[in-house]
Amino acid sequence: MKIITLTSDFGLKDSYPAQMKAAILGISLDVIIVDVTHMVDKFNVREGAFALASAAPYFPDGSIHVAVVDPLVGTQRRPIIVETKRGFLVGPDNGVLMLAAEKQGLLRAREITSRKLMLAHVSGTFHGRDVFAPAAAHLANGVNPEEFGPVITDLATPQFTRVTRGHEVVSGEVLNVDSFGNIITNIPGKDFAGFRGSMVQVEILDQKEHMRVLGTYGEARLNELLALVGSHGYAEIALNQGNAAERLQAKPGNKITLAKT
Amino acid sequence: MKIITLTSDFGLKDSYPAQMKAAILGISLDVIIVDVTHMVDKFNVREGAFALASAAPYFPDGSIHVAVVDPLVGTQRRPIIVETKRGFLVGPDNGVLMLAAEKQGLLRAREITSRKLMLAHVSGTFHGRDVFAPAAAHLANGVNPEEFGPVITDLATPQFTRVTRGHEVVSGEVLNVDSFGNIITNIPGKDFAGFRGSMVQVEILDQKEHMRVLGTYGEARLNELLALVGSHGYAEIALNQGNAAERLQAKPGNKITLAKT
Amino acid sequence: MKIITLTSDFGLKDSYPAQMKAAILGISLDVIIVDVTHMVDKFNVREGAFALASAAPYFPDGSIHVAVVDPLVGTQRRPIIVETKRGFLVGPDNGVLMLAAEKQGLLRAREITSRKLMLAHVSGTFHGRDVFAPAAAHLANGVNPEEFGPVITDLATPQFTRVTRGHEVVSGEVLNVDSFGNIITNIPGKDFAGFRGSMVQVEILDQKEHMRVLGTYGEARLNELLALVGSHGYAEIALNQGNAAERLQAKPGNKITLAKT
Repeated sequence: MKIITLTSDFGLKDSYPAQMKAAILGISLDVIIVDVTHMVDKFNVREGAFALASAAPYFPDGSIHVAVVDPLVGTQRRPIIVETKRGFLVGPDNGVLMLAAEKQGLLRAREITSRKLMLAHVSGTFHGRDVFAPAAAHLANGVNPEEFGPVITDLATPQFTRVTRGHEVVSGEVLNVDSFGNIITNIPGKDFAGFRGSMVQVEILDQKEHMRVLGTYGEARLNELLALVGSHGYAEIALNQGNAAERLQAKPGNKITLAKT
Repeated sequence: MKIITLTSDFGLKDSYPAQMKAAILGISLDVIIVDVTHMVDKFNVREGAFALASAAPYFPDGSIHVAVVDPLVGTQRRPIIVETKRGFLVGPDNGVLMLAAEKQGLLRAREITSRKLMLAHVSGTFHGRDVFAPAAAHLANGVNPEEFGPVITDLATPQFTRVTRGHEVVSGEVLNVDSFGNIITNIPGKDFAGFRGSMVQVEILDQKEHMRVLGTYGEARLNELLALVGSHGYAEIALNQGNAAERLQAKPGNKITLAKT
Repeated sequence: MKIITLTSDFGLKDSYPAQMKAAILGISLDVIIVDVTHMVDKFNVREGAFALASAAPYFPDGSIHVAVVDPLVGTQRRPIIVETKRGFLVGPDNGVLMLAAEKQGLLRAREITSRKLMLAHVSGTFHGRDVFAPAAAHLANGVNPEEFGPVITDLATPQFTRVTRGHEVVSGEVLNVDSFGNIITNIPGKDFAGFRGSMVQVEILDQKEHMRVLGTYGEARLNELLALVGSHGYAEIALNQGNAAERLQAKPGNKITLAKT
């Protein structure tokens, strides 16, 4: 019994998520299908990548995660399978899988080229149903990843998947602002763990702020800005008992640099 | 292991879809339940019928589809099971099952009259839980359709289920306008396949437009109106790179006639 | 094969419901997970309790219901398991389980204290994933309730869980106003059954209204106020063919008293 998860921007009114499930169940009934979310903002690849990377760590090893936020469906962008130390990721080669891949430990990626592992008719507009769902179901059935297509090494890496590591400095991007106003970056916890206990200068937009790197919000004083590794596993900027994103006017996509001082 | 799908206008805030699933699981645990959608506009039978007919073709043979958009629940409208070449459809006799039935190949329909195949207490307001969900679960358990009730032949056929076929002319209704402005009619692809390569006159409201019948959007010139068999399996009017429904002011429920010229 | 249901105020955009399912599936794959709703108004414990109590009766015996509307997560409020005659309820000790517990027949409650039956890392903010989902999965696996922690007897009973029974008089609170304007109270049907056929005085806010206690809406005259035991299993005030809540200006949380006259 394999788990297949679905992440998309299809919404919950139309029957598209159901069509993906139908395509899976036509190939394997021995699966448990779990919706991560279908409410990603339309075409927002970064948000889809973040949703998947937030949920995937809690699923058992061997789970197969499908993510379809796919503004370039029908063009030359490739359908891919990413093999990681913990399971498989399936979706378009546009970065939507890459945050989860980084967290899970990327082993290799393959382009899906084998037509016999897709639905008989592949539309130009709905690879979620016609390509990605069938690939996940075949993986659940034990089909060898080699059968899907060749290994590729030039995966798409949109800005939000890129982190620059220097000497006591690390740069990335704002991934998400949560409902408390915490600023979640794309900088993995492991790249920021060494900063704990230091002071950092945080540069975002035209602002530079100095703050402590702490373990939890509660270690900060009231209304003190702090940096920490948050519950999503990324470096995060917070304002104890306040809204850091409002204070710094930060938005997803902003470049951010954290430097020890 | 049987698949049961659910389509309704119950929304996702109230627990009604869960109550239907509970009723099913009280009768059979050996099922996979898939939501097609619960976000059909309240009481919009046409929209429910379209959602079900869009999703059903992708499910495996033997699937059992329940659709509950049921403005006349508690009146004399009959609960029915429709047997098709590909599986079973369960719901009220108001047309909500008929687009899927037409696509799957209708074999026969039965009124559900056997009280012992319903929940012990049947409310006047929620046949989805008390009548339709139990019927689907009993079908999944292998109960013979004959045991539910007598064959009926006078099924309800609201306007949106009716197509008039003449010599090189076919009339129906606008089923749906999709987010691209494509005008999807209720005219099955098989009734329109013979028009491919011809010119047609499309009459809708007070307008008459001449256009080519093509295979895909891309075969048309920029901003050219065209007719085609769309991905839902119905005749469709599109405007290449534009919004056909805006141009023709078309809405679901409009009568439409396509005639070869 | 056990059924686990989920009720929460997490909404459907974020991946929190999926994270709960992941935590369950990491412990047991031999479960059927059903969403009751995740659209409870944020922090509205009464509404969550009502949603669960409305749906739970339709699930088979032995089902395990998790409800997470938990404004005080991370404080001293206790995580609990309630054993009932029909199954298990799991969630915070804030009343969200108590309407369902009352309906099912409460046997005993335990505080969840065993760390080894939680996820390895328990966050301060998401006990749904870290404490309640794992507890439900372990119960599904047959872990003895005793292993979770000690019996407790001082369960939280917010106002909406309290009913005062006198001689031919019963007092409680408005639980819910449904989309028809029916006023659903927290007074269990069994405490009101003896009133059937009588006249009652209904006191709500500053108003007193006299009405008949009938079996169904249809027994009342057009625009007649009536009291009855409604389909949710609670005493209910309705206006035949009209909106009782508008007429009486009733809202969830209002105190209500029904006295035989």
